[in-house]
Amino acid sequence: MPEAEVRATVERILAGEVRAAARLIRDLDDGVPEAREILKHLYPKTGRAHIIGITGSPGVGKSTLTDRLIQHLRAQGKTVGVVAVDPTSPFSGGAILGDRIRMQRHATDDGVFIRSLATRGHFGGLTASARAVLTVLDAMGKDYLLVETVGVGQDEVEIAATAYTTLVVTVPGLGDDIQALKAGLLEVADILVVNKADREGAERTYQDLVTMLDLRFARETPPWMPRIYLTQARRDQGVAELLAGIQEHQAYLAQEGGQALRAAQRERVRQEFLELLKEGVFARLVAFLSQDDRLRTILEDILDRRTDPYTASEELIAQTFRPKKSATEE
Amino acid sequence: MPEAEVRATVERILAGEVRAAARLIRDLDDGVPEAREILKHLYPKTGRAHIIGITGSPGVGKSTLTDRLIQHLRAQGKTVGVVAVDPTSPFSGGAILGDRIRMQRHATDDGVFIRSLATRGHFGGLTASARAVLTVLDAMGKDYLLVETVGVGQDEVEIAATAYTTLVVTVPGLGDDIQALKAGLLEVADILVVNKADREGAERTYQDLVTMLDLRFARETPPWMPRIYLTQARRDQGVAELLAGIQEHQAYLAQEGGQALRAAQRERVRQEFLELLKEGVFARLVAFLSQDDRLRTILEDILDRRTDPYTASEELIAQTFRPKKSATEE
Repeated sequence: MPEAEVRATVERILAGEVRAAARLIRDLDDGVPEAREILKHLYPKTGRAHIIGITGSPGVGKSTLTDRLIQHLRAQGKTVGVVAVDPTSPFSGGAILGDRIRMQRHATDDGVFIRSLATRGHFGGLTASARAVLTVLDAMGKDYLLVETVGVGQDEVEIAATAYTTLVVTVPGLGDDIQALKAGLLEVADILVVNKADREGAERTYQDLVTMLDLRFARETPPWMPRIYLTQARRDQGVAELLAGIQEHQAYLAQEGGQALRAAQRERVRQEFLELLKEGVFARLVAFLSQDDRLRTILEDILDRRTDPYTASEELIAQTFRPKKSATEE
Repeated sequence: MPEAEVRATVERILAGEVRAAARLIRDLDDGVPEAREILKHLYPKTGRAHIIGITGSPGVGKSTLTDRLIQHLRAQGKTVGVVAVDPTSPFSGGAILGDRIRMQRHATDDGVFIRSLATRGHFGGLTASARAVLTVLDAMGKDYLLVETVGVGQDEVEIAATAYTTLVVTVPGLGDDIQALKAGLLEVADILVVNKADREGAERTYQDLVTMLDLRFARETPPWMPRIYLTQARRDQGVAELLAGIQEHQAYLAQEGGQALRAAQRERVRQEFLELLKEGVFARLVAFLSQDDRLRTILEDILDRRTDPYTASEELIAQTFRPKKSATEE
């Protein structure tokens, strides 16, 4: 791809062109080198979109809730980008199917762009791919970006947790789920959602969450006290109120010169940068190992117990990881 | 820990001492440097245990099945080590609870050692921790090692898939699950288990699996044709037959000078080595970044759009990843 074409693509994406964005995302997945260059050109134009993370166990209705939030945001005249991360999907094909169904509903709406990710692309890990897609959608000028992830596995939780406003979704009667919220997901929630609130036990679940928050913040009130909303996404009950809550959180982050927002952005950038480092350096190592049968030789040495994987990996790292001293240290 | 103590610990673990092994595993989790040295000393003594992977969706009864397999193996006089990997557990505490329940049943049996892993220890990723524990159990002289993982997420599937005999467990009536098997889990299965076979639809599920295998191997019969077993683990129905199938697969791997076993071992070592590399190099990078506020400076540059995370990570990698040429190349 010649330099002129790179620049043309950047311009088209900044203008919000769906086809150019979709192609770039495909190219990122396929490991096309120019795609990464385009991403670098797009990055300076990002940082405007408000990123909302939506996480929770399978079956709590995250997709339906996302769908409703899109509708309400569109009714406000906001443009929306959606990334759904579903690591179970290499095995279920679910993401692709879900994509098609949701795409259909919003197919004729230029203000919505939805992308599901199920497999690691060449870009790196699944979350690295998701972050790259978010960069593209942000550069397209979307007002809101929704990241929907299954709340299983630390990577998936992390990407929702590094959104600016994080929703943790549960349903009544999932006894385990309350346990789950207690132990980890609660920590990352700015907003708690009890979906399928027409089910038996909704009030109980709500009260449990109130008690948990009270216990957690018994000593001091946090700058943002997590809110709890009851919704029935399928019937569009409570979703308008939920969106109002999300936008109150957005306003909270922006107040006092946006200090809280800056802190959230810093944490987000930190995660993204470290993930890119990890994947990048690993890619170099693999390329290094593919030369001269190096990998095969090491594996045979380990198999025959002439060395062990711990020593072999340490030796290879010592041989390749040799930081240059910075100018001030020399 | 002085050198003499390292050697004493190694001897105790090789002698099968449970307390020494349990302590080493704790030390590995806590990142105690000597723990890794001990692991290096243990490695040459490993490679004898037969490793069985057990994976499948949540709720298919993997734990109960594992429990029954332990009983049957013990009845044969075999010693058993178990590692259960459950990444959902940082949020549910499930692994620890499950551990206690299972430990109780086998608490007085020195021939069984069970360890559940739910969180990433200092050793690296969750699967890296699991592999380290398997090394310890192998060195202890266990005849069989069972690795139970949730079949959600590529890492979890991978560690079961790199066992020598991989069981994929499903239950009747999980329509999605058959889809799941089709798309990915089927690829890694040496043995398919339809558990809870008293449920409606068991015969249908069995037939679906037969059809799938027929389709997959329509062109040529593989050296090992995956077997399908119907079980009711809770009532101990079909488990003896399943174990016979596992041991037939073990015998298949060992035949003709053990070529097939060697191939399975090579793939296993490859995964382990690459994971150790990835985690090891990342740890070095993080240590490097923690000097002189380096990380903070980079993050501020990205936040203020003076650079972007892609460029910044590439620059840092160029500064630190500088492979020495090997002697023959110089």
